[in-house]
Amino acid sequence: MGPGPSNIDPRVLQAMARPIIGHLDPQFIELMDDIKDLLRYAFQTENPLTFPISAPGSAGMETCFANLVEQGDKVLVCVNGVFGGRMKENVIRCGGEAIIVEDEWGAPVSSDKVEAALQAHPDINILAFVHAETSTGVCSDAATLAGIAKKYGCLTIMDCVTSLAGIPVLIDEWGIDAAYSGSQKCLSCPPGLSPITFSPRATDVVRKRKTKVQSWFLDLSLVMDYWSGEGARSYHHTAPINSMYALHESLLLLKDEGLKNSWARHETQHKFLKIGLENLGLSLLVDERFRLPQMNSVVIPGPLREREGDIRKALLSKHNLEIGAGLGDLAGKIWRIGLMGFGASEKNVETCIAALQSMLHAGLSSVS
Amino acid sequence: MGPGPSNIDPRVLQAMARPIIGHLDPQFIELMDDIKDLLRYAFQTENPLTFPISAPGSAGMETCFANLVEQGDKVLVCVNGVFGGRMKENVIRCGGEAIIVEDEWGAPVSSDKVEAALQAHPDINILAFVHAETSTGVCSDAATLAGIAKKYGCLTIMDCVTSLAGIPVLIDEWGIDAAYSGSQKCLSCPPGLSPITFSPRATDVVRKRKTKVQSWFLDLSLVMDYWSGEGARSYHHTAPINSMYALHESLLLLKDEGLKNSWARHETQHKFLKIGLENLGLSLLVDERFRLPQMNSVVIPGPLREREGDIRKALLSKHNLEIGAGLGDLAGKIWRIGLMGFGASEKNVETCIAALQSMLHAGLSSVS
Repeated sequence: MGPGPSNIDPRVLQAMARPIIGHLDPQFIELMDDIKDLLRYAFQTENPLTFPISAPGSAGMETCFANLVEQGDKVLVCVNGVFGGRMKENVIRCGGEAIIVEDEWGAPVSSDKVEAALQAHPDINILAFVHAETSTGVCSDAATLAGIAKKYGCLTIMDCVTSLAGIPVLIDEWGIDAAYSGSQKCLSCPPGLSPITFSPRATDVVRKRKTKVQSWFLDLSLVMDYWSGEGARSYHHTAPINSMYALHESLLLLKDEGLKNSWARHETQHKFLKIGLENLGLSLLVDERFRLPQMNSVVIPGPLREREGDIRKALLSKHNLEIGAGLGDLAGKIWRIGLMGFGASEKNVETCIAALQSMLHAGLSSVS
Repeated sequence: MGPGPSNIDPRVLQAMARPIIGHLDPQFIELMDDIKDLLRYAFQTENPLTFPISAPGSAGMETCFANLVEQGDKVLVCVNGVFGGRMKENVIRCGGEAIIVEDEWGAPVSSDKVEAALQAHPDINILAFVHAETSTGVCSDAATLAGIAKKYGCLTIMDCVTSLAGIPVLIDEWGIDAAYSGSQKCLSCPPGLSPITFSPRATDVVRKRKTKVQSWFLDLSLVMDYWSGEGARSYHHTAPINSMYALHESLLLLKDEGLKNSWARHETQHKFLKIGLENLGLSLLVDERFRLPQMNSVVIPGPLREREGDIRKALLSKHNLEIGAGLGDLAGKIWRIGLMGFGASEKNVETCIAALQSMLHAGLSSVS
């Protein structure tokens, strides 16, 4: 129950253990087509260029920046947690100029600040933001941010690693140009794959680049030929076949449940968790309006902060329960409790509350 | 029995289906340490910087070039097949200058040409070559090439994607500075991981870079902190936990069998295959002196060339047997039969020869 990887449905684990076939086998090509269709459903998009990158979410992020940013491009990056900071680093390494809009960790991206920055820098051509900040548990208003970007003629790059399948992610309705996610959060698949989707407008930008993408492995103009539906697939790299089996199975489970039901389940379990935490005298870091149901940042009570690492260790060793530590400025101040995908269950909430209760009793008695 | 991914031991598949734990869990950290030790055994090296990149072999290749090549560096790239060509592309995308030594597809890298090129260009600082060319089935003389590189003060980057565990790969004895492999060839693990090893000299070059590595995801100065044994592991990306279970299991199998026994098994099965092919009137493309036992390029008899694609399709649909097509200039002229890792078995050789025999009989009768 940390901030991911999340628990995995046994059906997905068993899918992963199926015998391997070749990466150019007609049956695997069919599976690839299925995965693309199912991902389009998860992302709520018609984008033809929708498929999983053969590496974790960080590589998905890099795919978006490396393909869309050219030397000297100006990118407005919204930083309100760890992953916004990583976006900035990506822009710089791609030879772009990163202009930063900063918000407090625990607060959402301010659309006013974004609009002001786009007004002040009319030559910015990309807006990049994190939809669901895994480091804080904050949800930013993607629809509004994408609308502003459109108004100023910018492409949008959105991180939806933690949001996809946990809360609404509406790529086409919002007008997002490029988005990446991860397999190991609300999709409840083993880590190692990063689903991406590019709008026709973004795909066009990739096609019309003046310079080659600096990464051969992540160059969409090459990977596309392997994942495209037209004509013969040309070999690019050996896809992680068994991981694709797992992703396929987890996407089937999502389709069976239905996106709306999945969002509702995350919301319901989050409410149960919140009540349980409040009963223990614990509060959530993030204002209710911006809270992610799937990533709960719990404020650690002052007297426990010094020993919070020991408490997490004991939760793991005595209760078989992993919860996440705070990152950056929030290290030692919050715990991060994930309710993601298969892990967003009543059983998990109950286990977590019972374990925390027993630890806090022990902790408080030895502190007092 | 294509050129990889290879067949996978059921023990490895079952390991992959184990329940997931966190990427910072103490038990996973132990597993990471085990994997590093076992990889050092597979690579025959003492290099501390030895671990799997969380992405396929192409990303391992890119890790070597992106970390070792800086703007303007001159790299001598030996091209005698597809993967040498890919190395060249990597050098260029890293801002380096690629100087090419070309050899015929099906022939090994000529050490004489390499020495002549290093003499002619004293400012070359890296020599890059493919040990075992998967596109042709040729083995180049890595020990000699590394020796020449050393004489001219160059670092060496070696592709051992297909060689590792199939034939001797002696990183320390040969004095190789950076090498990458893939999980899906003779390690018989699902594709998706790329074991790499960097010598202390190469690690030092990474540490002393003037510019940042252009890829954040593959920047060893960051990934090292996650994989290093000293102090707290800092979070870099979410490792593909279940794929690591599989790699760990496949490396345990290799350790149990013993490297020398594994090499011998590949050689033995290759000899059986060769005899079987000769009995069918088929010959191998590569001169005996440079032949890889694990990747056999079979010359397709002239009368069958036009229909070779249909033959491969029928082998797959009727005999459940995959063999690989030729690439580049060798497309339509050779088949590539892999005997890799778990797939290097008498049963596989027998299946393959029997299936080819039945196909060739059918093929020849309908051709004549």
